[in-house]
Amino acid sequence: MSKLRVAVLGARGRIGSEAVRAVEAADDMELVAALGRDDKLESLTDSGAQVVVELTTPASVMDNLDFCVRHGIHAVVGTTGWTDERLAQLNTWLSGSPGTGVLIAPNFSIGAVLTMKFAQQAARYFESVEVIELHHPNKADAPSGTAARTAQLIAEARREAGCAPQPDATATALDGARGADVDGIPVHSVRLRGLLAHQEVLLGGEGETLTIRHDSLHHSSFMPGILLGARRVATTPGLTFGLENFLDLN
Amino acid sequence: MSKLRVAVLGARGRIGSEAVRAVEAADDMELVAALGRDDKLESLTDSGAQVVVELTTPASVMDNLDFCVRHGIHAVVGTTGWTDERLAQLNTWLSGSPGTGVLIAPNFSIGAVLTMKFAQQAARYFESVEVIELHHPNKADAPSGTAARTAQLIAEARREAGCAPQPDATATALDGARGADVDGIPVHSVRLRGLLAHQEVLLGGEGETLTIRHDSLHHSSFMPGILLGARRVATTPGLTFGLENFLDLN
Amino acid sequence: MSKLRVAVLGARGRIGSEAVRAVEAADDMELVAALGRDDKLESLTDSGAQVVVELTTPASVMDNLDFCVRHGIHAVVGTTGWTDERLAQLNTWLSGSPGTGVLIAPNFSIGAVLTMKFAQQAARYFESVEVIELHHPNKADAPSGTAARTAQLIAEARREAGCAPQPDATATALDGARGADVDGIPVHSVRLRGLLAHQEVLLGGEGETLTIRHDSLHHSSFMPGILLGARRVATTPGLTFGLENFLDLN
Amino acid sequence: MSKLRVAVLGARGRIGSEAVRAVEAADDMELVAALGRDDKLESLTDSGAQVVVELTTPASVMDNLDFCVRHGIHAVVGTTGWTDERLAQLNTWLSGSPGTGVLIAPNFSIGAVLTMKFAQQAARYFESVEVIELHHPNKADAPSGTAARTAQLIAEARREAGCAPQPDATATALDGARGADVDGIPVHSVRLRGLLAHQEVLLGGEGETLTIRHDSLHHSSFMPGILLGARRVATTPGLTFGLENFLDLN
Repeated sequence: MSKLRVAVLGARGRIGSEAVRAVEAADDMELVAALGRDDKLESLTDSGAQVVVELTTPASVMDNLDFCVRHGIHAVVGTTGWTDERLAQLNTWLSGSPGTGVLIAPNFSIGAVLTMKFAQQAARYFESVEVIELHHPNKADAPSGTAARTAQLIAEARREAGCAPQPDATATALDGARGADVDGIPVHSVRLRGLLAHQEVLLGGEGETLTIRHDSLHHSSFMPGILLGARRVATTPGLTFGLENFLDLN
Repeated sequence: MSKLRVAVLGARGRIGSEAVRAVEAADDMELVAALGRDDKLESLTDSGAQVVVELTTPASVMDNLDFCVRHGIHAVVGTTGWTDERLAQLNTWLSGSPGTGVLIAPNFSIGAVLTMKFAQQAARYFESVEVIELHHPNKADAPSGTAARTAQLIAEARREAGCAPQPDATATALDGARGADVDGIPVHSVRLRGLLAHQEVLLGGEGETLTIRHDSLHHSSFMPGILLGARRVATTPGLTFGLENFLDLN
Repeated sequence: MSKLRVAVLGARGRIGSEAVRAVEAADDMELVAALGRDDKLESLTDSGAQVVVELTTPASVMDNLDFCVRHGIHAVVGTTGWTDERLAQLNTWLSGSPGTGVLIAPNFSIGAVLTMKFAQQAARYFESVEVIELHHPNKADAPSGTAARTAQLIAEARREAGCAPQPDATATALDGARGADVDGIPVHSVRLRGLLAHQEVLLGGEGETLTIRHDSLHHSSFMPGILLGARRVATTPGLTFGLENFLDLN
Repeated sequence: MSKLRVAVLGARGRIGSEAVRAVEAADDMELVAALGRDDKLESLTDSGAQVVVELTTPASVMDNLDFCVRHGIHAVVGTTGWTDERLAQLNTWLSGSPGTGVLIAPNFSIGAVLTMKFAQQAARYFESVEVIELHHPNKADAPSGTAARTAQLIAEARREAGCAPQPDATATALDGARGADVDGIPVHSVRLRGLLAHQEVLLGGEGETLTIRHDSLHHSSFMPGILLGARRVATTPGLTFGLENFLDLN
């Protein structure tokens, strides 16, 4: 079987250099280009890249994708900063190149994506749901973006299923004890030296609890998701938003 | 809205009496009969039961279901001891009563069912999977039936996805340290005073782990699943095996 | 060896009746009296009780202890409502009966007592400490009294050791995300159907974390501590406050 | 206050180079020498080192300590391979230099040391104790040395306290399900990609469980223990074995 020809854009960044190594280590892929800030995009076509892993910056991602789509090169995109305008622009480009696929993923960690998915699926079947996220103490925001997003997905699933409000008899509380309220879901943020990035979704019903916990110990956790994206984007024309769409969950 | 007319068979057993209370407490249900060992099945038709919750014994379940199916009463069955012969017999009865539904569930705990389902879905996306089950020290078998079943489902999912064998460099080990081997999946059994029934599925990939944990603190945890089964069995003709088929997981 | 002669006061209450059974089941004890609200205290002397387990109410505990101390009967006290005045009164009585011992314990769960003790001991050796307590949703206060007390003990230990303030770079936070501030220690309260009473102390330092978790699944968890108290109070004259003083931690 | 003058031996190794950085970063210490394999020990006396951190190899540690003790330089030793003969030799040297202190520690992680200590203290107060250790899948031995040592300390504490054997009604078990038997304590070894080094001690009694968990995410976790050792060894003449002796646990 011929190998998938993969190029990495942003190859000298922290995640990018890890992606270079991951592509090189994958049996079914060949790394055909690894471009940094000043390298020419023509290397992509010259090298016959079939899929580009785009890990640059919001300032350069649109030019890069314009080039890829025009040349029928599929793209897996980790760069952030997506607005409705940018997505619309990208869709326009893609409509002119019907066989080309682009995957944009806010999170390439399969564990994080599955945690959100499972939390969303389970949410309607339990009376109570709360989220605890735990991070290193240098983090500036609380709760984490992932925890806030998880809580919103849970809240949405519960609304759609017509769940009753969560039971909570708290009458006397210290300020903050019951956590932040994200769309009706309590979210608690722990900041502890020695931790990296962790999240727990606790679901409770009559006589039982279900806990889904994700521990992220290294940003290398993005690599399996990036490789999985690269393998599938070539056969998924158009724009896909979110890695969960590439997971077979049945 | 008219209430669902529900009867309980085995109403004086430990689970059965709890089911009686659960049906009585449900807003959308009416308990129309609660039968013990010596009560006549005719009470079911007399009372106009639409759904029967069958929580008796392998010795009586077939007669009970024969009666129910013949009279078009749907059934939610927690009684165990199902063989291929019994299932075939039941299917024959059901083919003669096309509008009637029967749900047989080895486990009515929604948390347990979701744990198995999620473990199965996630299994192919991680290099390593192990199962830890923890129970009170009066339990006679190790591992638990649920843990063994979970491990088998995981192994099956990994085979289907063509996963590589799990990495394990263990060269020197004390007997038993690495757990029991269930179809290639290590399963560890903890027996501890103070515990009831708990299970953890640990999945590990590059730089991250995902843990799905179910804690069962009381057999009242079967009630939400029994009620959910009762609500859905009336609109699901034929035989359904496993509560997971009645959960909307998308 | 002759058995310890034990009486229970408040023997018909929820905890009291459990204590009656626990004393009866203990090999080294004999239950000589089990008194309810209207029973005469003279039964204690008549029956030759050596140790009384006092599980009544703040309204009757002082009269009961007055009687016990005057008759040289040791006491293990679970009744709450202790003020400085009451303690002073009890000490006066005890000074008139030098061989008699009284143990008052706010918590007879050995697991809860050890959690507090270990948290206190470990607190000075880690940069970060947070407390998560998790209870059933019918609980009226947040955080729990035990969690608040644990946080205070931790804060005290850190002050005495001259620890620096905990690192926390949080700049943008939703209200409540970072928990309640109890004496500088963040405390998070989770309320979830299916839970009973649980507490986790998380300690984090460079490259490592230590977690001490207590799960209380039944108030029978008080019995081992009550029996341990009964065994040791007879040889510990005077007033002892807190079960931790009867644990050998070296 | 004058700073403690500290030297590092084995300064170019993985742990040694980290120790160099940790000493430099400590407000109360001055790094006066950082010696690799070929450097002369005389640098220690020339630089006026008060404490040496010894992180070399079994082949060189004895010569290094001979030199240190002869010159009254205290030592904190992480090098392994200690036999009774070596310890006797070291004690002879120390008896000739009465003011000098040497700390040898098999484990400098404060979390690991506290986990063992707490497990040992709590072991006698619970009916059941089991140990789960979880490591990356490249580990060659199972269980880990730390888990085996922890189990032995627990077993010893239970023997001294005259504890009854653990309850376990297991009658039918798959091979290995109940873990390895280390001195009567079941020990379970999990090997999972994404993990580093983790250990859980589970203690269970009537109606409650206590869990002590240590997560080691980086070998930087040794640094606080090494610094603590350096601070205290100067005022602790003679040989001290084990970091726990330098922790104030009361």
